[in-house]
Amino acid sequence: MVGSVQFGNVAERREQPPALAVSTVIFALRDDDRTGRKGLWLPLVRRTREPFLGQWALPGGPLGARDSLVDAAAANLRDTTGLIPRYLEQLYAFGDPARSPTRRVVSIVYWALVRENDAQHTESAATSVLLDDPNVAWFRADDVEVMEHLAFDHSRIIDYALWRLRNKVEYGSIAHRLLGERFTLAQVRGVYEAVLNKSLDPANFRRQLRAAADIEETDEFLSGGKHRPPRLYRYSGSTSHPLESETIS
Amino acid sequence: MVGSVQFGNVAERREQPPALAVSTVIFALRDDDRTGRKGLWLPLVRRTREPFLGQWALPGGPLGARDSLVDAAAANLRDTTGLIPRYLEQLYAFGDPARSPTRRVVSIVYWALVRENDAQHTESAATSVLLDDPNVAWFRADDVEVMEHLAFDHSRIIDYALWRLRNKVEYGSIAHRLLGERFTLAQVRGVYEAVLNKSLDPANFRRQLRAAADIEETDEFLSGGKHRPPRLYRYSGSTSHPLESETIS
Repeated sequence: MVGSVQFGNVAERREQPPALAVSTVIFALRDDDRTGRKGLWLPLVRRTREPFLGQWALPGGPLGARDSLVDAAAANLRDTTGLIPRYLEQLYAFGDPARSPTRRVVSIVYWALVRENDAQHTESAATSVLLDDPNVAWFRADDVEVMEHLAFDHSRIIDYALWRLRNKVEYGSIAHRLLGERFTLAQVRGVYEAVLNKSLDPANFRRQLRAAADIEETDEFLSGGKHRPPRLYRYSGSTSHPLESETIS
Repeated sequence: MVGSVQFGNVAERREQPPALAVSTVIFALRDDDRTGRKGLWLPLVRRTREPFLGQWALPGGPLGARDSLVDAAAANLRDTTGLIPRYLEQLYAFGDPARSPTRRVVSIVYWALVRENDAQHTESAATSVLLDDPNVAWFRADDVEVMEHLAFDHSRIIDYALWRLRNKVEYGSIAHRLLGERFTLAQVRGVYEAVLNKSLDPANFRRQLRAAADIEETDEFLSGGKHRPPRLYRYSGSTSHPLESETIS
């Protein structure tokens, strides 16, 4: 530890107590013209000051003196992107001493899965920040060129969010959040394809999904459309702990 | 928000940037003389200064300028209790503005499940803090009298840790961590009984457990003992992400 002592301004800032920031990872389903299927997209904000001036970063900002963590995350998200999700879930606190080149910052990261319509509505409503501001844009989560060159350790944060999505969250719950209360099996396949980032055979998928425990049939069918209306399903899994799906005050 | 402005020292401290602390929840299995079965126990530290002077609290302390979060958690745990677990997992960041009556503190909480033997070894080895210090002691997680009167929001933190254990962690993984690589079905029942805090019928439990996906038979049997040696099982579930089971440097 003694051997790592540095001198100068950066070293002095490193001796200050760590600062706290709150950032968000927002995933939405969107059509992907390249693949012809749905993909996972997320909003990023271009940094307008050092460090990492000009690079893309997760929406976020400092923790105000009086906001709860989730309210600070929601306020930072709204101010930078115009997005107002219904809930946010705490993902992880990132605190490596070297993650910022200047003062040490611990970032508490929240995440949410939002419906495609919500994401679009919010863009066109309210401040329209997303449409008008060249420093805010949606990117495909598999856009390697962008995702590998984010500010701070934000590439690592998004990697971890994707890992959590692929490994730890029930698909019924993901479908529920990305699609709403009721959804067709074809829509669920779109969710799997977006999260796994590959095409799936419709017939095989149908067979396997029926065995999954966390999705159940309803008595309703999708109205509209020319063909036989497809059946609607819903998420049948457990509800979260209040700390795991925090509503924003 | 304006209406909640206060005056005096506390109000001034509230305007300072939030301070960061790191705390730990350590669960171990121990015999419970009252019930005759295993129970979940955790170490607590009595506060020797205000706020909450004299009340029990989770082991923890401030985040040093240069430690990673997990290293700070491990160092605080070692300094207050003498315990040195092999890994720690991040549980949650607690940041309600009102959780401390003086300066605002955001606590990043880590947790671990440790083997009974590890917990005992650590007590008798090294500094023996746990044995000699009247301000450090193990308590049953279901000791309502203690758990409902902890400092800060630590009762809520323990409640959430227990909820996670009961709802979000695979039992095979819990058994693996609390018992080790190999375990008998009777030992797994002990784990379920401790986590659920109730007795389970051995025959029913055996039947139901065999259907669980995350525990598999080995070809080994427990040696020693007078009776037919019971078969050993192991956890067959997925490995965690490196961020979810952090080794301590």
